[in-house]
Amino acid sequence: MRIASLAKTAGVAVRWRPFMLGPIFKAQGWETSPFNLYPAKGRNMWRDLERICLADNMPFVRPKSSPQNTLQAARVALVGLAESWRKDYCRAIYRAEFGEGRNVEEEETITEILQSLGQDAGAVLQRARSDGIKSQLRARTEEAQRLDIFGSPTFIIADGELFWGNDRLEAASNWAVH
Amino acid sequence: MRIASLAKTAGVAVRWRPFMLGPIFKAQGWETSPFNLYPAKGRNMWRDLERICLADNMPFVRPKSSPQNTLQAARVALVGLAESWRKDYCRAIYRAEFGEGRNVEEEETITEILQSLGQDAGAVLQRARSDGIKSQLRARTEEAQRLDIFGSPTFIIADGELFWGNDRLEAASNWAVH
Repeated sequence: MRIASLAKTAGVAVRWRPFMLGPIFKAQGWETSPFNLYPAKGRNMWRDLERICLADNMPFVRPKSSPQNTLQAARVALVGLAESWRKDYCRAIYRAEFGEGRNVEEEETITEILQSLGQDAGAVLQRARSDGIKSQLRARTEEAQRLDIFGSPTFIIADGELFWGNDRLEAASNWAVH
Repeated sequence: MRIASLAKTAGVAVRWRPFMLGPIFKAQGWETSPFNLYPAKGRNMWRDLERICLADNMPFVRPKSSPQNTLQAARVALVGLAESWRKDYCRAIYRAEFGEGRNVEEEETITEILQSLGQDAGAVLQRARSDGIKSQLRARTEEAQRLDIFGSPTFIIADGELFWGNDRLEAASNWAVH
């Protein structure tokens, strides 16, 4: 939600990189989100997110189920990576899940979002199911693991410096311009 | 390092509450720090801390062993709770461990710190070993668990709102004054 405008102000170019967090969690021995595994920490995470959204004037509705399987949503993001709608799509997916509490596992949600962006949802979803996109997403996820990524969002600067989390966005931006 | 001056500026009263994190980690199934259990996250935590200290102009030296057993250090903090040296002592313990990479498990380190604060280290350490202090620290740790505390530092506002981490200190202070 914040990176595009912040990066524009700072004069930093951003390359968006979808990847799957599930396999990365699994490699650490987590079968679900750490926020489910460690309830006290999880409760604070949701409350913290709620406070941050309130302070930033963003809608927040806690989704009924979390984490959601974003495999299809991520494949669509990959299809969109070279398209003009990629950032709007990513923001819309996150807004649907965390701003409206919707289920982004459902093809219906993704279809609605693509249509709202003026896209041919059926054609995009068909491309998202292609072997090329499937293997690209696997490769991106493996790349994320090689880069020592353990969570999302992560910002990696051209020199390799890694910043994790919305609350490190400003630090990442400062690092990029200095 | 930051709370005393920040709270003073904001006009917020702070009550310092030492507790042990080890039993809280253990209750979550962690036999050591999560930063050892999850190496990728741990590497980023240390690097992040290093960057933060650099930005805040604070010394940082990664201790050779971590986490350290702070049982004796915490008992001494409890002894000091009603004394004028309590804040200086807490800051000195953290500075020794993370600013100088020293071992605060060792009685020698604690003795040196108490002496630098003009205290009779032998007498303080003797009080720290008393049954009263031992049971007080257990009670504080149990209280921390009841309050849903899962990490340190945690800031709990009078209305029960919980904020976790140095990076939430400003949010906690704002919550306290509004």
